[in-house]
This record gives sequence, structure tokens and C-alpha cells, in this order.
Amino acid sequence: MIGKVFKVSVFGESHGTCVGTLIEGCPPGLRVDENLLRTELRRRKPGSSLTSPRREEDEPVVMAGVFRGRSTGAPILIIIYNRDRDSSFYEAIKDTPRPGHADYVARVKYWGMNDYRGGGIFSGRLTAALVAAGAVAKELLRKHGIRVYSYVVRIGDVEASVEPRDSPEFREAIDASPVKCPDIKASKRMEDLVRRVAEEGDSVGGVVETVAFNVPVGLGAPPADTLDGDIAKAVFVVPGVKGVEFGAGFRIAGMRGSEANDPLVLRGGAVVTETNNSGGVNGGISNGAPVVFRVAFRPTPTVRKPQRTVNLATREPAVIKGWGRHDPCIAIRAAPAVEAVTAVVLADHLLRWYSWEGMRSKILG
Amino acid sequence: MIGKVFKVSVFGESHGTCVGTLIEGCPPGLRVDENLLRTELRRRKPGSSLTSPRREEDEPVVMAGVFRGRSTGAPILIIIYNRDRDSSFYEAIKDTPRPGHADYVARVKYWGMNDYRGGGIFSGRLTAALVAAGAVAKELLRKHGIRVYSYVVRIGDVEASVEPRDSPEFREAIDASPVKCPDIKASKRMEDLVRRVAEEGDSVGGVVETVAFNVPVGLGAPPADTLDGDIAKAVFVVPGVKGVEFGAGFRIAGMRGSEANDPLVLRGGAVVTETNNSGGVNGGISNGAPVVFRVAFRPTPTVRKPQRTVNLATREPAVIKGWGRHDPCIAIRAAPAVEAVTAVVLADHLLRWYSWEGMRSKILG
Amino acid sequence: MIGKVFKVSVFGESHGTCVGTLIEGCPPGLRVDENLLRTELRRRKPGSSLTSPRREEDEPVVMAGVFRGRSTGAPILIIIYNRDRDSSFYEAIKDTPRPGHADYVARVKYWGMNDYRGGGIFSGRLTAALVAAGAVAKELLRKHGIRVYSYVVRIGDVEASVEPRDSPEFREAIDASPVKCPDIKASKRMEDLVRRVAEEGDSVGGVVETVAFNVPVGLGAPPADTLDGDIAKAVFVVPGVKGVEFGAGFRIAGMRGSEANDPLVLRGGAVVTETNNSGGVNGGISNGAPVVFRVAFRPTPTVRKPQRTVNLATREPAVIKGWGRHDPCIAIRAAPAVEAVTAVVLADHLLRWYSWEGMRSKILG
Amino acid sequence: MIGKVFKVSVFGESHGTCVGTLIEGCPPGLRVDENLLRTELRRRKPGSSLTSPRREEDEPVVMAGVFRGRSTGAPILIIIYNRDRDSSFYEAIKDTPRPGHADYVARVKYWGMNDYRGGGIFSGRLTAALVAAGAVAKELLRKHGIRVYSYVVRIGDVEASVEPRDSPEFREAIDASPVKCPDIKASKRMEDLVRRVAEEGDSVGGVVETVAFNVPVGLGAPPADTLDGDIAKAVFVVPGVKGVEFGAGFRIAGMRGSEANDPLVLRGGAVVTETNNSGGVNGGISNGAPVVFRVAFRPTPTVRKPQRTVNLATREPAVIKGWGRHDPCIAIRAAPAVEAVTAVVLADHLLRWYSWEGMRSKILG
Repeated sequence: MIGKVFKVSVFGESHGTCVGTLIEGCPPGLRVDENLLRTELRRRKPGSSLTSPRREEDEPVVMAGVFRGRSTGAPILIIIYNRDRDSSFYEAIKDTPRPGHADYVARVKYWGMNDYRGGGIFSGRLTAALVAAGAVAKELLRKHGIRVYSYVVRIGDVEASVEPRDSPEFREAIDASPVKCPDIKASKRMEDLVRRVAEEGDSVGGVVETVAFNVPVGLGAPPADTLDGDIAKAVFVVPGVKGVEFGAGFRIAGMRGSEANDPLVLRGGAVVTETNNSGGVNGGISNGAPVVFRVAFRPTPTVRKPQRTVNLATREPAVIKGWGRHDPCIAIRAAPAVEAVTAVVLADHLLRWYSWEGMRSKILG
Repeated sequence: MIGKVFKVSVFGESHGTCVGTLIEGCPPGLRVDENLLRTELRRRKPGSSLTSPRREEDEPVVMAGVFRGRSTGAPILIIIYNRDRDSSFYEAIKDTPRPGHADYVARVKYWGMNDYRGGGIFSGRLTAALVAAGAVAKELLRKHGIRVYSYVVRIGDVEASVEPRDSPEFREAIDASPVKCPDIKASKRMEDLVRRVAEEGDSVGGVVETVAFNVPVGLGAPPADTLDGDIAKAVFVVPGVKGVEFGAGFRIAGMRGSEANDPLVLRGGAVVTETNNSGGVNGGISNGAPVVFRVAFRPTPTVRKPQRTVNLATREPAVIKGWGRHDPCIAIRAAPAVEAVTAVVLADHLLRWYSWEGMRSKILG
Repeated sequence: MIGKVFKVSVFGESHGTCVGTLIEGCPPGLRVDENLLRTELRRRKPGSSLTSPRREEDEPVVMAGVFRGRSTGAPILIIIYNRDRDSSFYEAIKDTPRPGHADYVARVKYWGMNDYRGGGIFSGRLTAALVAAGAVAKELLRKHGIRVYSYVVRIGDVEASVEPRDSPEFREAIDASPVKCPDIKASKRMEDLVRRVAEEGDSVGGVVETVAFNVPVGLGAPPADTLDGDIAKAVFVVPGVKGVEFGAGFRIAGMRGSEANDPLVLRGGAVVTETNNSGGVNGGISNGAPVVFRVAFRPTPTVRKPQRTVNLATREPAVIKGWGRHDPCIAIRAAPAVEAVTAVVLADHLLRWYSWEGMRSKILG
Repeated sequence: MIGKVFKVSVFGESHGTCVGTLIEGCPPGLRVDENLLRTELRRRKPGSSLTSPRREEDEPVVMAGVFRGRSTGAPILIIIYNRDRDSSFYEAIKDTPRPGHADYVARVKYWGMNDYRGGGIFSGRLTAALVAAGAVAKELLRKHGIRVYSYVVRIGDVEASVEPRDSPEFREAIDASPVKCPDIKASKRMEDLVRRVAEEGDSVGGVVETVAFNVPVGLGAPPADTLDGDIAKAVFVVPGVKGVEFGAGFRIAGMRGSEANDPLVLRGGAVVTETNNSGGVNGGISNGAPVVFRVAFRPTPTVRKPQRTVNLATREPAVIKGWGRHDPCIAIRAAPAVEAVTAVVLADHLLRWYSWEGMRSKILG
């Protein structure tokens, strides 16, 4: 479960009946309908040559917690059915765990009872459930003027130069790019790279950047539930994450304090930071600057090139080759999922923030 | 609170009575005494020219949950009293928040009621509480043969080359270095850098690496409570963290799948990964390889060089200069704190793992 | 959510698409299939003259977390679809909250956005979701030899005399009674009373007793998560509960200590309590005796007799009369739900208990 | 831990260094000082012939989270030191668990490592920690006009007739009674009974009633976190509880629906319930009427009369006699502890309520 007040659970398997999400603690009155969900889900939809050739029909169904198109305050259940899938490949390889995947750890942890078809709960398909939950969280944030954007800033050795802006144009630029990169030039080079890598029967890693605008000063609940820590934990729910960094991130290790500190200045009467090396968070609390962070994604583990593994039935070395239908770069489809989990964490901390703010005038008198 | 079964809370202020930790859910029978705690606390003790010249006497006192030197199963309370401190500097600057610090966000979030002296709960002094909690967690892990080591691998532009080993010698090499770096050559250069930076009235960032050996396959509770996600969240409790990456980390974004995947091979009859680009975690679950991750620390925000800020009382621009007693590089003293929170998360997931494992033979029959 | 390790959420509305449950933290390898669920659900099925004349087809569908009939360790989603229902009555009364129901509080708390049809999430129909979750919990408990029985011991002024036994015959005696009361004579009188009350257009309250056999010594996590406290909280999830008491319960207020204390004696070499005034729990921890408690249920709030209320649209006094399809005594159908939530709490505490027990030999050496 | 937003943990042992509480999530700006705490603690202070002759000096010390007499928003730590105590009696009986106490279950659950002196964490002394936490919660509630009163309504066969009122006089009447019973006549008879029972070397049970005034409509978070369920769970943290009932409680089992339902009527333009059989809660949500519930307390387990037990060292039957310093009726000193945990639960749900209410105008527009 992600969140303590706005609480999101996800469930489902790649080759099972469905994936989906249960949202508990969502306030009443928010628009939640299939159109809204479909719009968000389409942003992670595969289909182009750059993502998996599978034709997924992500048809979300709202099963509970919504009445006449609005959240009711009761738990919200959203389900996205799976289409019939061919699981024969997975039967063939069920004793030979795919390197880089969770096959081996799942088999050990779940005593061999796990649904191994398509990675089961470890499938990237679970991100559809995250995106659905994020769609609801974003409706809540929208009421507060908070908007979140996630986009690809790096694939392999191609790095983009992105200046995020809180505007419909920026959103469109992200959505228009087949690699979710709003820097058109870089996007083109990324496309080329992904296509080349796919032809080689290989895959490639990437970096997703996220920015949240209009986050009020004060979200986060230190010592333990820092805003950055909660975001960091949540992004690891997205498959393939290997790192997360805020603001200047790892680069800050090479900086001097006099350079890394963000000076506080007045702008239009408001106290703001002049720079944003902190990524919008100090001491685990939002400081009013955009919350900015980057997430590193590993290359898709499944590749057509042969990979060494072990046959767990015979306990002998084995070689496995990936099967065709996988994105060569998971970072692309992961971007909307990172955006979604960020929205969920912000929604949770926004509600937690109001639990104090609502009492403020009564306490201070 | 960190953890769901082995649960750690920290409390206290830099210039208040004490800092400390409450540990709930710790099993009975573990050695918990002041000597044990003192040994751990000494590892974060300042005193050399490289860390703060303050002479802190970290005298831990076990207040509850321990009987005749052993944990009883009841909540454990450990307190570390503060020495008398001069808070006059903080009175002088209380309206001019220090850039890079949590001064400004704390004032807003806590409606001006926060203890601003020495950073209050945002002080690095809270890491003493984390280290105390970690000492108890490490006793639990020790019973299972799990050992955790954190050490500095980078300060500014000086990078170390460290080959972690699960041995007393490795521990000694860490502890012997004034910068907590077991690479002697790099340690020397780091020392020089830190000294030079201090003389300039500035500070510098760094990177702490952590490795946990002998973690059994299967720790982690996906989808939401991944092992890497829980570690990532916990490290943000340590002040000054700006990023965390596992295994190949951000470098993996530039890799091909065929290269990033860790082949599964047999070693002495056991299934192991040949490489460790995954950092010991797949799909949020430990895979039996050492759990390896790195944490980026910002430079100490307090520097002697002048910094621009805003006087919140007069709403006018202001300039502030740091006061003398601060570590020029917080990464050094943070290393034991990272080690401690890692131990806490592993202890929690170890106990959670047993909640299923204990039923295994009964269920599988 | 009920539970901390074995975690159960319920969702759904009376006149919405479905009700159901999400179970997180369930170990792998347990039998979970529609037959098992159907068997349990049948125990709360209405149809006789004593319960609602509605013909509910409680067809459970396992949507996630189960593979080849066994739990996988992933979140389990179970859905029970609602049949088409006539909601016209509820449209007519939506501004006149039914006394004793949650109509009024729901309207206020949920800002008028709640699904008011059939009580929405406050409907007794949610107990089907609880029973489904309980079916899974009972499979876990069964592996440990723990069995739970809930039955009616009182309806109105008719009190039963029940000597609970851990046997298939006892289970059958409960299931055979149309009022879930294993005391045949009392059962007959209860039937008569319920029928008479129904004819009067009224309803009647009752008491459900629960006993859990073979609970090992040591379940419960004081100070806060006591076993009795967690059970007490969970039973309030069942609609209509107004009280819960363990062992001698409220009667103990009139007793002397010398009489209330359960002497410890040896039986077959084992330490047991001679009496069970404590209801199997001391200090929040199971003591090895059967866990015994009783739950008081209010009469069904909906009655055909006229009830005074307020029209919230006009802000004028109003009178409302219940509509036909309601059980005259909710305690009857609530019994399986109480059994279910008890099983869930015991399953949770059993797994929590193993989180320590699994480490026992490693710690004590 | 009690609570999810306003979170209270208690710790400590009867014969250890201290008892105390850690409060996390408390908003800033509340008065928290030793005087306030002392006033509350005095209400559970023994000393008269009716309670234990021990002279406890409950000197609370605020250790963290408070600055200049006000809460800061950081975790609040309050400690109450124990006086030196004679533990020799407990050494003598450590192998012969006292019937009715938690001695036996503690020894089993905690593998013999528990602090058995004076009952360790199971001691009634922990209620001092609860009362301290409750004092802070009551400050929060006070800002909202919510007030909580707990008082004794029954001891043995003596029942009081109490009409609770939200007034200083009612508070004084409770505090003035040596048995915490505001019905003066009943109080006198209770005193006599307790004295007589004490002379007999026995103890006696009782019932504590609690009423909370001015609770707004809408507190409670169903399905799982009902307001009544959370209160029910919290009262089991107080030692010796065997039952809890709201409003008409168990009596409702004998009622008809037409009689049990609380009619909704208009009073001064407000919708209120005419009667309060529901005890101020419908569907797990406060309905605006006073929240009223009763808690059954067992007689003090320690009695001077001989009790049968088992010597766990020799595995032979044994007889044990209580030692002198115990309250003959724990219900009396438990009343302030019930009041305290009720305040904590209400404070938690009040803050949770604001997490939605704060967004209300933004969502509804």
C-alpha cells in the first residue's frame, strides 16, 4: 500500500484475469470515470515500433466507490481486464529463470506457488494499475492547482535537455513524443537508438525526470515520513527502478556548500529559492519550489540475445533467449507510472497536511 | 516510524534535553546494553579536525524494554542526553533562515512553533538516535549472520575504489579512516580535501556506499513494500540525502540489457548471480547477492561564506554567515547512520519474512 | 484495513456493481477457490422466512492472487457481483434518513456524494466480503489446527445455553439452525420470536458468541495491539454491533477477584486455566484457553412501523416506513461475518507471532 | 501505537526506570507542560484507603517535542520516573504465575526474558503513560470544544445513576469522589464495598462509563477504522478490560427496532437524535450526539486469599497469596486512563477528519 491517508493498493497478474487498484481514503466529490482513466492509460499504451507490439486494450472499469461519476468517500476499486494471452512460452521456461527478472526470487519467496506467466505480479503490466490510481490522485491535486509531469530525459547515451514548464504545451510535448521526451531533437535520436537496439535483439536503459508544480510549502512528515523518502519508496513500486535522485542529485556530492545551497530571495513578496539544487525539498519538507527528481531504469531484462541461467529442475546451467513482445526500453512506458505514483504520494501528503492545517486557526486562536 | 514489525521512531532536538529512539516489536533475548550502544555511537563521534570540533559525549541510557542486559520484547527506549549548549547564535538568526537548511520550511510547516535552535529535529544530531536503533537491529541481524557496512566512497571530486568484504578487517579499515573510507589512498586525499574546504570556510558533498552480506533470498514485500524502496525511504531520514541508487544505479541507464542482466550461475550447488548490477534486489526482493547501494549527500549547508537569505520578520533580503562548529562534510558522520537505518529495514523485513516462513512447513505439509 | 501482516480491505456498495475484498500478505500455497468461498458464503445466505426474502446469488469470483487454486503470495482480490436491484425506494427516501441507519452521518461525512441506495457501503451486504476474506483466513488457521465458530446465543429475550465444542457436529448444529443457534430448543423459540416480530413489522436484537479453539499461547502484541482489542475493533466492521465482551464480560464487574481469577492447573503436563473467565486472553495475549467473546447486535434499523425523521431537503419533520426486504434480526446473518473477522484477526496475529518465533532458536542459541 | 495521524506509543515497566509515552503527529502550538500533565496524573494517583497504599510520585518530565511550553510539531516524549521499589516479592514468585495476571502468557510469549517484576509492561502503572498522552490529546480536543469524562458507574453490585453533563461541576463531582463516581450516594456505598472487600483480602470488579461531548458529525473512517471500533481497541490497552459497549449496549439485544432506533428530530434548526441508544455512533461514524460507552473491568487479580497456580520451574501445583500493595478495585484508577485513550482516539479521528474537510471547499468548488 502506498500512502497513509490516501491509500493505494495494486493487484493483478500479467496473464491472470486483470490488474487493478484499490484506493482507500479518497475524499468525496472527485470526478472518477472511465473516460478520465482511459485518457491516462492511453499515455502508457504500447503499439508503436518503440514499445511492445502487443495490442493491449486497457479498458478500465470502475467497480466500487464511485456514484454518478464522482468519488463517494468509500473505497474505490478500478479493474483493467487482461486480454487472452498465450502463456505457452512461460510454461517452456518456467524452470529457467530469466536473468534480470524477478523469476528466481519469486520462485524462492513464494515457495514455487507464484504465477510465473509473464512475470506475474512483477510484470510491467502492473503499471496500468498505478496509472489508474494516479489518475484519481491527479484529480485531487488538480483541485489544489498541483500538476505533475514525468518524461524521459535519457535513453542509453542520448541525453535530452528539458526545461519543464507548468503548461498544456509541455504536457503535449511529452505526449507527442513516442519516447515521452519533450526535447524534440533528443526524442528523435532516442527513437533511432531504441529502434537500433531492438534490431540488435537487445534493450537499453533510461532516465525519467519528474517535476511537480505548485506544491505548497510544508508537505512531508519528518522525521520518518519525509516527502522525498515517500516518493523514493513509491517509485520502486514501478518495475525496473535502480535509482532516484532529487534536485542536483548525485552531482551534489561534487559540489561545495556555497554553491549547492539555494539562496532564499523575495519574488513578488514571496520567499522563494533562487536555484533548485534541493529539488524542492529541505529536511523532508516541500519548500515551495518545484519538486524535481530523476529515476534510473534498467534496460528491459528480456532480450533476444542468449542469456545464461540455471535450470532449477535439473540444477544445471542453461541458456535462455527472450521472446519477442517486449519493449526495448521500459523507461518510456514507465514515465506515466512514475508520474502516477508521484501524484499518489503528493495526494497523500496533501491530505496529511490538511489534518493539521484544518486545526490551525482553532489552535493559534 | 521506520518498519512495520520491527518499528523504530526517533525523537529529540539538537538543543533540547535529548535525542533518542523508541523501538517497538523487537524480539526478546537480544543483547542491548550501554556498552554495545556506546561502541556504535563512537563511530559517529566527532572530534578530529575533519568533523565538528564540538565535544559530544554520547552517553546512551536504556530507559525501558531491557532487563538484565537483554531485550524483553517490550518497547525499548534509548535516550542520549544533550550537553548544555550555547543557543545564542540561533536566537540571533532565528528570523533569517539558513539556505540549504530546513529552517524556512520548518517555520512555515510548524507555524513558527518549532525549536529552531541548532536545527531542532532537523539537526544531524538525530543520527545518534538512528545509530542507537541500528545497534539493536544489528544485534538481531547478527543472529542471522547478516552484516551491514557503510563507508564513504566519494568526497567532492575524490573517488575511492573499494572492494567490500564481509570481514572484521574491512570493518576496521572503515573505522580507522577519519573519513570512513576503507581505501587508504583515497582516504588520505579525502582528508586533505576536507581540510582545505574547511579552511576556505566552505563545505563539500560526498557519497556513502552500503553493502549488506548474507541477506537471504526473499526479503521484501512487493508490490508496495519493496526491499529497495524501504531502504530508499529510510535513508532519507538521514539529513542531507539527495539520491540513492542500487547496484549499477544511474549508470544502468546507459547499458544494454544483455550487459546489465546478472547471469544466474551455480556456485557450490547454489544459484547465484555472476555479476551484481541489480545490487542484490530483483523485483523488490533480495536475490541472495550482497545488497549494495550508494547514497548522495549534499555539502553541509552551514558555511562560513556569506549566504543570501530573507529576514522573515522584516521581509527584506539579508545575508548570513555560518557559525564555526559544523562538519565540513556531513557524509562522513552520516555513514554510520546510513548503516543503522539499513540494519533497521533489514531487521524489519527479516521478521516479516519469518511471518511466512514460520508457517511454511505447516502450509506445504 | 484489518490486520498488519495478513491485511484485509473490503469495498463495494449494496446497489453498486459488487462487493469484495482485497487480501494482502497472505502466504502462498493455501487453497482459495470459488467452491471454498461459496461454502462459506452460503452460511450467510438469506432466503428463509427468518432472513430477508431477497434471493441473493453470492457468486464469488477470484480475480487475482490465486494460481491453479492456490494462493500465490500476491494480493488476492475476490469479487461478489450484485444482482440488478430496484433502487427506486431509495430515491424516494434519499432526503429522509432512516433512524438507526448510517444515512444521516453518511450524508454529512461524505458531503452528500455517497451512494445512498441500500445503505451503500453501510449495507449488511458488505458482510459477504468479510465472509470471503474470512474463508481465506480460516484456510490459514486450519493449517495450524485453529478453528473458529460463531453462533447466536440470544435473540430478544430468548437465551440459548450452548456448550461450544471443537467438532464437526458442533459446526453442523450451527449451520442446521435457521437462526444459527446450536441449542435446538432455543433455536426453535428464537425462530418463533423472529417470525412474530416480522409479522409485527418490527425487528429484534441479538447476541453472537464466538469461540476459537487451539489458539497457541502468545498471540497478541501489547501494549497497543492486544489480541482482544484487535478482535474488538474488527467486530465493529460488521454492521449493527453495539458491544463486545470477553469471557465473563460485563458480569465480571460484579465478581470478586478470588472468584474471577482463572486458577492455573496442570492437565496432561500442560499448564491450563481451570476456568475461563478471562475468555482466553490475559494482558492482551492468548493464554491457550479457547478465546471466547460475545457481540451485541442492535435490531435491524429498517422496520415497517413508522419512524420519525427529518427531511433534509425541506428541513422539516418527516415520517418514514421501512420497505419489505430486510432481515428482522441482523444478528443471524452477522454470525458468519463475526466468525470471519475473528479468523482474519487470528490469522494476522498468528503470522505476527511467527515473525518472532521464526527467530527464536537463532536468538536463544 | 494508538492512532494513525495523532499516534501514541507507551513504554516502560512497573519496576524499571520509568514509564512514558511518545506522541507523533501532534500539531504545533498546544500547551504541553509539566503542570498540565501533573493535574491529569493526579487524577489517577493512589493514596487513599481505597486505592493502593503505595505513595507514587508521578512527576512527568517532557523530554522532547515541546519548546517554551508549546508543542512544536515534532515527536513529544514524556517520561514519568519510577521510585525505587522493592522487587523481592517478585523474585520469590517468579516461577509461580499469578492467576488472572499476564505472568504466565508473558513468560511464554517473551521466552522467559520479560521483566516480571510488578507485572512489567502489564502493570497498571502504564496507565500513567496513557494519562500523560491523554492530557495532550485533551488539549487538542479542547481547542475544538470537545470534552471527555470517564467515571465509575458500578462496583460489584453497587450501581450508580449518573446523568452526565458537559460542565465543570460534573468534572468536580467525579474528581471529588474517592471512587470516581459522581453519584454521591452510590459513591458512598461503593467506598464501603471496596473497603469491606479489601478487609476480606479480596478485590472487586467495576464498570467505567465515558461520555464525549461536542464531537462533530462525521468522525470515523469506515469500513475498517470505525470510531467505535477504534475506541474499543484502545480501551483494551488499559489493563483489566473485559468488555465495552456503546449506547444501549448489550441491552439492545433485547429491544425491538422500533424502540432501539433513535428518531431524528430538529432542535434549534439542527438535526439531532432524540434518544441515544446508538451511543453517538452510527455506521462507525459520530452522529453528533454524545459518544457514550461503558467498559467492564475485572477485579484486581492480586488478592490476599490463596490462589492455585503452577510452579513453572518444578512443574508442580502451587499456591500463591497476593502481597499487600494493590488497589482492591482497578476500575477506580482505570477511569482516567479510559478517558485518556478515548481522548487520543478522538484526537486522531479529528485530525483525520480535517484531512478531508480542509479540501472540501476546493473540491466542491
